[in-house]
Amino acid sequence: MSVHIAVDVGGTQLRAASYLPESLNPLKLDKIPTQGPDGSPLDRLKKLIASVIPENDTVSAIGVAAPGAVNPYQGIIHTAPNIPGWTNLALGPDLQSFFDTPVYIGNDANMAALAEWQYGAGRGHHHLIYITVSTGIGTGVIIDDRLLLGVSGLATEMGHVTVMMDGPMCGCGLRGHIEAFASGTAIAKYVEEELAKGIQSILPERTRLSAKDVAAAAYQGDQLSITAFQRAGRVLGIGLANYLHIFNPSIIIIGGGVSRSGEILFGPMRASLEENVLSSQYLDGLTLTSSTLGDEVGLLGALALARSLPGN
Amino acid sequence: MSVHIAVDVGGTQLRAASYLPESLNPLKLDKIPTQGPDGSPLDRLKKLIASVIPENDTVSAIGVAAPGAVNPYQGIIHTAPNIPGWTNLALGPDLQSFFDTPVYIGNDANMAALAEWQYGAGRGHHHLIYITVSTGIGTGVIIDDRLLLGVSGLATEMGHVTVMMDGPMCGCGLRGHIEAFASGTAIAKYVEEELAKGIQSILPERTRLSAKDVAAAAYQGDQLSITAFQRAGRVLGIGLANYLHIFNPSIIIIGGGVSRSGEILFGPMRASLEENVLSSQYLDGLTLTSSTLGDEVGLLGALALARSLPGN
Repeated sequence: MSVHIAVDVGGTQLRAASYLPESLNPLKLDKIPTQGPDGSPLDRLKKLIASVIPENDTVSAIGVAAPGAVNPYQGIIHTAPNIPGWTNLALGPDLQSFFDTPVYIGNDANMAALAEWQYGAGRGHHHLIYITVSTGIGTGVIIDDRLLLGVSGLATEMGHVTVMMDGPMCGCGLRGHIEAFASGTAIAKYVEEELAKGIQSILPERTRLSAKDVAAAAYQGDQLSITAFQRAGRVLGIGLANYLHIFNPSIIIIGGGVSRSGEILFGPMRASLEENVLSSQYLDGLTLTSSTLGDEVGLLGALALARSLPGN
Repeated sequence: MSVHIAVDVGGTQLRAASYLPESLNPLKLDKIPTQGPDGSPLDRLKKLIASVIPENDTVSAIGVAAPGAVNPYQGIIHTAPNIPGWTNLALGPDLQSFFDTPVYIGNDANMAALAEWQYGAGRGHHHLIYITVSTGIGTGVIIDDRLLLGVSGLATEMGHVTVMMDGPMCGCGLRGHIEAFASGTAIAKYVEEELAKGIQSILPERTRLSAKDVAAAAYQGDQLSITAFQRAGRVLGIGLANYLHIFNPSIIIIGGGVSRSGEILFGPMRASLEENVLSSQYLDGLTLTSSTLGDEVGLLGALALARSLPGN
């Protein structure tokens, strides 16, 4: 038989799996840390991929979900956060010649959008927005049944859209982006800064907090933590309204760790979306839902990508 | 012969023209005021269209550029600013049955994008953003050689994207949109408000100003007028940076009356774009240019639309 290989490259973990045509159940799946003593991340990745190819099977195509700025047309990873040395790395051509099979590479948020559209909450939709709220904010967009990539694959960096000129600093070095208010990093940072100002909270001062800590405190009634999520939710709602005005999709799917915070985030987000939308027509028939594929979303997106190649 | 008919519906003027296949020179072109004593705007429009169909010729298709919120899939005009009574008007079906020919309707900013892409500054590009800066701000986007419409044709209202939460009121009733800073209306309103505060200027207080008045004063060195355009240009630059992050196009085309203000607007806009872009990769190979089709842009977009219909 001929299998498709899906690969999910992360800053801490590499995952790979092989799939028979039509199946979403991996024949073989393995994961290893991205960094290790026995070789570079690239060498480790090649060994990992080789290890999930079943004996006596051939490979139809490899799909790779990779973090950071990716040129999907050329298979180049421009920058990969947390993987030193992966700068302008021609990963696609390298794997293609090493495994002698077609290789396609996509940004991880785009791959998650593809996965939800093909196999998850977005099945049957033609206009879809996926947003992952995690350490940062990533987005992927399907328009007219096609992934929006742009001329060099850099499209849909919608965490880096300005909602507040001269607002708080974003991780990218610019100000007032959605990510600077609503990412896990931004939520924790806001609480740390308020604590340093002397605002009362059950959370400890001078500690490195996570959005998960803040969510737990919010559910215990901590006002500062509730405010932090209200602020994030309000900005997310404005962002979603903007995305509706820009794309007029039929579904928005929200994934990522911070989205698991639940109603302390989604309540203010929905209220803000309704308040900031230009006309109720944008909400008519709109599905606003959570990601259904969980941790598998990267692998399944890479699988969808591999299967979308001509001849596959 | 068989001709295509292009129609440009405006709040003050109706224009229609007939074209032979392949030609951009109208066989017959006529324009009349939208309102008149002899019949409703819809009746006047039908007479106008009939008047530009050459004797002995048949009509292959009619394309219509219309202002406001349009559902291009159903040919419905939801709202048309300045044309009373045009609310949820089934213009497409009505014209289709009246003239017994296929009719396709699009929003005027989308039609301008289509015109620039097919016949103007955007020829040969596959990823294009058109922005018209006029009384309001309208946008149209071509992605992968297709017009972005969304699930019900309401996409690319990018004048109504928030860049400053809690910022100045926009014409739509929401706050801090790009249009609330950078449209002709917003530029004039800013100056009027500053004058009322007692800020010095060569412009008269308690007068209804236009962006054209402000531009003329700016070119005479009036500091308040220069500041008004700097503010508008800065926000436009942030908006353009956002659009690059969202769409990663190869060309941005700027049209509309206010864009004719020249360097007092474009200087600050370009500086702000460069300052607010996430990475120089978005600017690599990007063309940033002015509309080339002038007043014909609506008609030519409607023509491109008529010609894009199956069988045409």
